[in-house]
Amino acid sequence: MILSALLTSVGINLGLCFLFFALYSILRKQPGNIKVYSPRLFGERKTQQEDDFNLERLLPSPGWVKRAWQPSEDELLSITGLDAAVFMRMFIFCLRVFTFASIIGIFVLLPINFLGNQLTDGFSNLPTKSLDSFSISNVDDGSNRLWIHFCAAYIFTGVVCYLLYYEYNYISLKRTAYFYSSKPQPHQFTILVRGIPTSSESSLSQVVENFFTEYHPSTYLSHAVVRQTSKIRSLMNDAGKLYRRLGHLKSTNSQQRFKRDGFLGLFGRKVDLVDHYEKKLEDIEDNVRLEQSSLAGEEVPAAFVSFKSRFGAAIALHIQQGINPTEWVTEKAPEPKDVYWPFFSASFIKRWIFKIAVVVAYIALTILFLIPVVLVQGLTHLDQLETWLPFLKGVLSLTFISDLITGYLPSLILLLFLSVVPPIMVVFSSIQGYISHSQIEKSACIKLLWFTVWNIFFANVLSGSALSMVNIFLEPKKIPSLLGEAVPAQASFFIAYVVTSGWTSLSSELFRLIPLLYSFMRSLFAGKDGVDDFEIPSIRYHSEIPRVLFFELLGVTYFFLAPLILPFLLVYYCLGYIIYRNQFLNVYAPKFETGGKFWPIVHDSTIFSLVLMHIIAIGIFGLKKLPLASGLIIPLPVLTLIFNEYCRKRFLPIFKAYPTECLIKKDRGDQNDPTMTEFLEKLPTAYQDPALMPVQYSRSDDGRSSPLLGAAEV
Amino acid sequence: MILSALLTSVGINLGLCFLFFALYSILRKQPGNIKVYSPRLFGERKTQQEDDFNLERLLPSPGWVKRAWQPSEDELLSITGLDAAVFMRMFIFCLRVFTFASIIGIFVLLPINFLGNQLTDGFSNLPTKSLDSFSISNVDDGSNRLWIHFCAAYIFTGVVCYLLYYEYNYISLKRTAYFYSSKPQPHQFTILVRGIPTSSESSLSQVVENFFTEYHPSTYLSHAVVRQTSKIRSLMNDAGKLYRRLGHLKSTNSQQRFKRDGFLGLFGRKVDLVDHYEKKLEDIEDNVRLEQSSLAGEEVPAAFVSFKSRFGAAIALHIQQGINPTEWVTEKAPEPKDVYWPFFSASFIKRWIFKIAVVVAYIALTILFLIPVVLVQGLTHLDQLETWLPFLKGVLSLTFISDLITGYLPSLILLLFLSVVPPIMVVFSSIQGYISHSQIEKSACIKLLWFTVWNIFFANVLSGSALSMVNIFLEPKKIPSLLGEAVPAQASFFIAYVVTSGWTSLSSELFRLIPLLYSFMRSLFAGKDGVDDFEIPSIRYHSEIPRVLFFELLGVTYFFLAPLILPFLLVYYCLGYIIYRNQFLNVYAPKFETGGKFWPIVHDSTIFSLVLMHIIAIGIFGLKKLPLASGLIIPLPVLTLIFNEYCRKRFLPIFKAYPTECLIKKDRGDQNDPTMTEFLEKLPTAYQDPALMPVQYSRSDDGRSSPLLGAAEV
Repeated sequence: MILSALLTSVGINLGLCFLFFALYSILRKQPGNIKVYSPRLFGERKTQQEDDFNLERLLPSPGWVKRAWQPSEDELLSITGLDAAVFMRMFIFCLRVFTFASIIGIFVLLPINFLGNQLTDGFSNLPTKSLDSFSISNVDDGSNRLWIHFCAAYIFTGVVCYLLYYEYNYISLKRTAYFYSSKPQPHQFTILVRGIPTSSESSLSQVVENFFTEYHPSTYLSHAVVRQTSKIRSLMNDAGKLYRRLGHLKSTNSQQRFKRDGFLGLFGRKVDLVDHYEKKLEDIEDNVRLEQSSLAGEEVPAAFVSFKSRFGAAIALHIQQGINPTEWVTEKAPEPKDVYWPFFSASFIKRWIFKIAVVVAYIALTILFLIPVVLVQGLTHLDQLETWLPFLKGVLSLTFISDLITGYLPSLILLLFLSVVPPIMVVFSSIQGYISHSQIEKSACIKLLWFTVWNIFFANVLSGSALSMVNIFLEPKKIPSLLGEAVPAQASFFIAYVVTSGWTSLSSELFRLIPLLYSFMRSLFAGKDGVDDFEIPSIRYHSEIPRVLFFELLGVTYFFLAPLILPFLLVYYCLGYIIYRNQFLNVYAPKFETGGKFWPIVHDSTIFSLVLMHIIAIGIFGLKKLPLASGLIIPLPVLTLIFNEYCRKRFLPIFKAYPTECLIKKDRGDQNDPTMTEFLEKLPTAYQDPALMPVQYSRSDDGRSSPLLGAAEV
Repeated sequence: MILSALLTSVGINLGLCFLFFALYSILRKQPGNIKVYSPRLFGERKTQQEDDFNLERLLPSPGWVKRAWQPSEDELLSITGLDAAVFMRMFIFCLRVFTFASIIGIFVLLPINFLGNQLTDGFSNLPTKSLDSFSISNVDDGSNRLWIHFCAAYIFTGVVCYLLYYEYNYISLKRTAYFYSSKPQPHQFTILVRGIPTSSESSLSQVVENFFTEYHPSTYLSHAVVRQTSKIRSLMNDAGKLYRRLGHLKSTNSQQRFKRDGFLGLFGRKVDLVDHYEKKLEDIEDNVRLEQSSLAGEEVPAAFVSFKSRFGAAIALHIQQGINPTEWVTEKAPEPKDVYWPFFSASFIKRWIFKIAVVVAYIALTILFLIPVVLVQGLTHLDQLETWLPFLKGVLSLTFISDLITGYLPSLILLLFLSVVPPIMVVFSSIQGYISHSQIEKSACIKLLWFTVWNIFFANVLSGSALSMVNIFLEPKKIPSLLGEAVPAQASFFIAYVVTSGWTSLSSELFRLIPLLYSFMRSLFAGKDGVDDFEIPSIRYHSEIPRVLFFELLGVTYFFLAPLILPFLLVYYCLGYIIYRNQFLNVYAPKFETGGKFWPIVHDSTIFSLVLMHIIAIGIFGLKKLPLASGLIIPLPVLTLIFNEYCRKRFLPIFKAYPTECLIKKDRGDQNDPTMTEFLEKLPTAYQDPALMPVQYSRSDDGRSSPLLGAAEV
């Protein structure tokens, strides 16, 4: 790619971004869009709908930027919870890393690269200059200037590691502080027990009761056995649909309410559809009640067991309970609203086989996905495209079109393909047997991250078929030189990728096109009665975090290869910082609170990026005929991995469970709390499957209290 | 190697074995050797020295075999402890595996191999027939008979996995039963806490006291801070030496007791050496006492913390204590006599760096050790040896000599080299920071096992220089075909290795040559007073287990390649079973009791052997032009690894810690035990560094109660 193509792409995207920002700042002021752009505030009734029209509403204004910027981190934490604060720390961390990287990259490395003569096209005609002349490829083979790159790699690694340590420490302190300041919550007192041994004499509930009164007599409080509710769930789903149709019918005019009950609704006597549906709804509800009461036999060998203190729960959690380690398996209970009810798979073996199946499916998907990636890759090699599709020759000869195609189209297509993947990963993770939404998202996040790294980074860099890519890992010795050759060659693609995919994703995040369209359609067709299915959205960490981290990987690996990427990344992180802050304040409400458990993913991914960078450095110094530098880089990944190992020992345990010190301090603090007795009384009913809650659709007075909806949409 | 060379080797070794056995059965009956051959019984005063001479004493008799055979497993368990019982289970397991393997190997695979024509030398002249004609190399390429080998691999793997599961289950049940039947022991109630945060205001002891009374008020009992005692230890060592010399002087005649105190003991006045030494000893003892009392400042940030119940100790053990995971690090306390006092390295970081250093040193040793191995390897290739050392040509042309050299010498030299390694591994493991002898032995055992596999199996098979061996692992794709080619070629070497190294090691184990010589020298020079330094030996698991497991690896990998190895292995395991039973009953006393924690090593090593066998099978079927079989083997290692993963989940936790169920049952059982109060009173003093115990050498009445000796030899 040449400089002008890059500039075209930057121009288009910058324009688009500003367009979106302007549109956003206008649209958000329209009272009709309040549910799209400030659903959080609307849900919390913190905003009032002003319907009086004024001119200011039609002018773009940057007020939202200021409002997003203003709150301090502690304010943000109290408003949005720790997970969101950690998500924002990721941006701060990346900003710090790439500010430092940009200073070194732009002011030191870029001039050195540009002054090299390896690609020999001199200073003439800057716009048609290949982007490669700004990369390390342009430095002369064996030149001593490469030692500057060598030093840069060492210094950069040191700085990143320092920042990693600092952040890990900072967030682990925040996590502890958050725990200390939290109110008593059911999940702090509860564990999930799986693999309860079945007995022919007594019910599961009795077995659990006996076991815990026997072995935890002083701390055991209560338990709730999980039940098989898939049948009720589907019945309730039907009820929910019917209820919504009823609501719709009632609100429309009475013409549509009547229908003949005969063939195709043409013959027979006229019936009031409302009556008809209400009767049907009642039938279903009776069915649900019947199912709910007859469920004793369908107990799943899993139970939520609550304790009188946090430390009591921790004791049962951390120590193996039964002699057989596959029975009485304990794990932390998620928050009640975070529980993923549909999948409490029965046995230890079954869950375990599912896990293996998911691994296989994941690998298969990852490999099959290479096909579209390879096709997209073709677009950046125009000449290849022309040989494949000769009829395009005429169109492609237009510079603008070819610039557009090489600079913009490939990453857009990739983006479309990629948007299908996150839901698939969530499905995988939920099959795997996680029992909370947060665990599913975390697992999907990790899956998607590696998927992205493999399918975007490696597939583009190595641009081979799936088989040849797998082959690489069977010959690890060749990896450095292979990467050293291939990675710099793809610099221009990834610079364009940052500009198109990165910037576009941010502006679409802000603009929320699909919710906007949806809300527009609703208001057009359904009138104004949509209160019942309004839900505050929550951020999908599993698709956002891998994207942000992938750009970090690009930045780290290309830092000394093609420093030209750094300013674009810096723009990305600056915009991202403001936009996500705005979204957290206005749009998203947390669906769960993991207490910052997403941070270790960020840490690990950064370490991976660093080591990848080192491997590439080994390869490139070898190719550039500087074997000494190539050899001297080797201690760097080793040191980085040792550093990582230290961090795992030093910080990771804090993210897995709270220590005795915290738990007991917190428990003691509660002893003087008068609300504790009330809390403990409510605890036994905290973990109830929504499918087993009483049904109240028909004959409800106003139809607005709909306890079923949450359950039906799980 | 040809058949006659193998038979020579078998003949020599069989003769040697029977010679050793006969000598053993005579020597063990001599009263003077009772401390060599029945030190355990002697130590427990279970045997009386009969000095009356009779003829029966001079005749070899097989009575010891019967006596070793007789005790049932439960009797053996009660006499020798669980570790020894588990060690014997290893033999039973191997016997079962190789009985099955021999039936298939000898009656099915061997005839098929022998009937092949690949190596085309027909039936003529059996003695000069190469051993290769009994191996899979002799089967014709692409022959359908190879499918029988294929089936054998599947069936064998299935049987071994079943046996593995059975044993793991059996031993885990034994382990639980052993725990239930054990008396209250200090280490069940105690944990070791490391990384105690230092405070400028209060002493370490106070910090520990405060922390545990704060967070474990109901279960905390007492603690003992570990102290820096290396100085005292060396002083006590000196005292011990002096004391022994004194004892020696006192027992000899009075002529040697006097010596002039001037130049070279020739001039000056005569002094009583006994007086002189006693004065010196008193000085040292005063010094020791001074050091002991002034030690308050040299506390190490580690402490043994005891609790009132086993469950209380488990709670503190399993839950992270402090907010900083590198502080208040808990681990299980070893038995008091099992503690390895000298090395309580100070900080978390320091231990951690030592660990890395040990890994590096271990890798270096493993690689450097290749040099002698490669030299030994040369001996099996006589032609190569002749080109190197031409003057040997005359000697080597004698068939007997050349048979001896190819069949016997190489493995003997290897054996000598290998005998140096176990102590080095123990040193490595003790530097690594383990705090008990049992952990050090376990770690050394694992180290030695991989060392053996690498340096004997891989080095011999691949017979290349260190560098080319490392290269193999950088090209994993070629591994199967490389192994498939190289492993069968070394069959004859390993058959000879089993016969020489295996059988020899067993008879030398029984014969105890070095203790015998030592005892002989003592009785020759020192008279009969040696009671004070008599110590019952303990088996060195770290050198015995890897040896036994290595033969298992040979058996498993060569099972379908060269089934001729199997009968020799069967003989090895039969002899081993009887000999080690005899040794456990008569010679060894357990130094510690891990409760069968060595078994997981056996399990893992067997799984490794199976997978290695599968990889070789993939290679060999490929080489034998049966690619379909080669491909169809691939699921086998995958299934084996999944099976292993299941076993890890199902059984391994039981070997790491006891579950709540066991702990609480045991604690409740103790509540009615009247001796418990006494036990708990003694508990605070159970973990005291022997170096800090009161010194009582000089002026002790009979000189036989020597509390220092144990400490001085630690």
